[in-house]
Amino acid sequence: MKLFGYWRSLAAFRVRIALNLKGQAFEVVSTDLIKGEQFDPEYLKINPQGVVPALVTDDGTTLTQSMAILEYLDEVYPEPALLPADAAARARVRALCMILVADMHPLVVPRIRKYVTQDLGHSEEELGAWIGNWTTKGLEAIEKHLAEDGHSGTYCEGDQVTMADLCLVPQIGAAVLFKIPLDAYPNCQRIFKSCMELPAFFDARPQAQPDFPEEMK
Amino acid sequence: MKLFGYWRSLAAFRVRIALNLKGQAFEVVSTDLIKGEQFDPEYLKINPQGVVPALVTDDGTTLTQSMAILEYLDEVYPEPALLPADAAARARVRALCMILVADMHPLVVPRIRKYVTQDLGHSEEELGAWIGNWTTKGLEAIEKHLAEDGHSGTYCEGDQVTMADLCLVPQIGAAVLFKIPLDAYPNCQRIFKSCMELPAFFDARPQAQPDFPEEMK
Repeated sequence: MKLFGYWRSLAAFRVRIALNLKGQAFEVVSTDLIKGEQFDPEYLKINPQGVVPALVTDDGTTLTQSMAILEYLDEVYPEPALLPADAAARARVRALCMILVADMHPLVVPRIRKYVTQDLGHSEEELGAWIGNWTTKGLEAIEKHLAEDGHSGTYCEGDQVTMADLCLVPQIGAAVLFKIPLDAYPNCQRIFKSCMELPAFFDARPQAQPDFPEEMK
Repeated sequence: MKLFGYWRSLAAFRVRIALNLKGQAFEVVSTDLIKGEQFDPEYLKINPQGVVPALVTDDGTTLTQSMAILEYLDEVYPEPALLPADAAARARVRALCMILVADMHPLVVPRIRKYVTQDLGHSEEELGAWIGNWTTKGLEAIEKHLAEDGHSGTYCEGDQVTMADLCLVPQIGAAVLFKIPLDAYPNCQRIFKSCMELPAFFDARPQAQPDFPEEMK
């Protein structure tokens, strides 16, 4: 399979973890979001939305949107399962994913940061406050779920790695990058650490990607 | 079942359509997002994130996040199915959902509109440009998928009503409300019209809700 992604894309990070967990080999095609390679006409033929990731399977099927890709991988390669068996528990896992994937991540992606600074004319400091506000609000909601609804264990849903962990880990990594204090989110931190002890997560981290910049190593 | 929602919440609209399609009776509990009732301590016990919708099932299970609720309803009440049978087609439907639910809707919800005007100090006109920009970008991506990937029919995925339609219809309704021109999105408009001819969609529209304001009728 070919994964069109970028080292710092949180959405591509989620898919890399899933492919690793499922034991599926994949070739990374780096799409530099800072240079705007996601808008190259050739890439737009693969993903007309001009975002990463896109996964092209061995039979030539193109999949887009990280959550749709995670669900696909879980359906086509059922082991290890990334969702629990019980319907209500599955809904809880997917709800955690959606807080991370819909209510947090889309507010801090490059296109939004560019609009806030260039189109709306805000300073880097004001952009930082924007990022901090939405990241904090999201993590507060996640932490309450993890701390209060009696489901979390080693991972977000008991001792099974689920899609919720695949979505949480990149977002915590980004919070660290954005220098957001995490003291108020002990469960998030604990689960991040547990996950990063697993090779499927550790090997998928941005720093381990072939397109991670030399000067940042 | 009890659905905590609000007449103008696009996410609650999605869930109302699903419940109607599945033939499940539900009681609406209005949660006024403008008055801030989503932050009432009693509601935060139901949904610690302080957003709608939340669905409380007859056995007392609380579900949050509209996409997680749609998947739950489709698993627990399989007929009529809201996803196609084929894994790649399911991934396409979910990808369309995610463009609408993650890349469009979270950018125009009340909390964002409030931050843009109150915290960042922008005018209603600048807010309108913000809403127009992200709505347009999202609809362009959806329209390209519908027009070019050979899957759309009466609805987003052939002639089967799927989750993609449940996510598209509220977003088109909102675009009309925000006075965004839709001429460039003929497939979106066509599918919106086809869906609104179905009672499950029509009866779920904001204007038909018990908490729709008298003065707007």
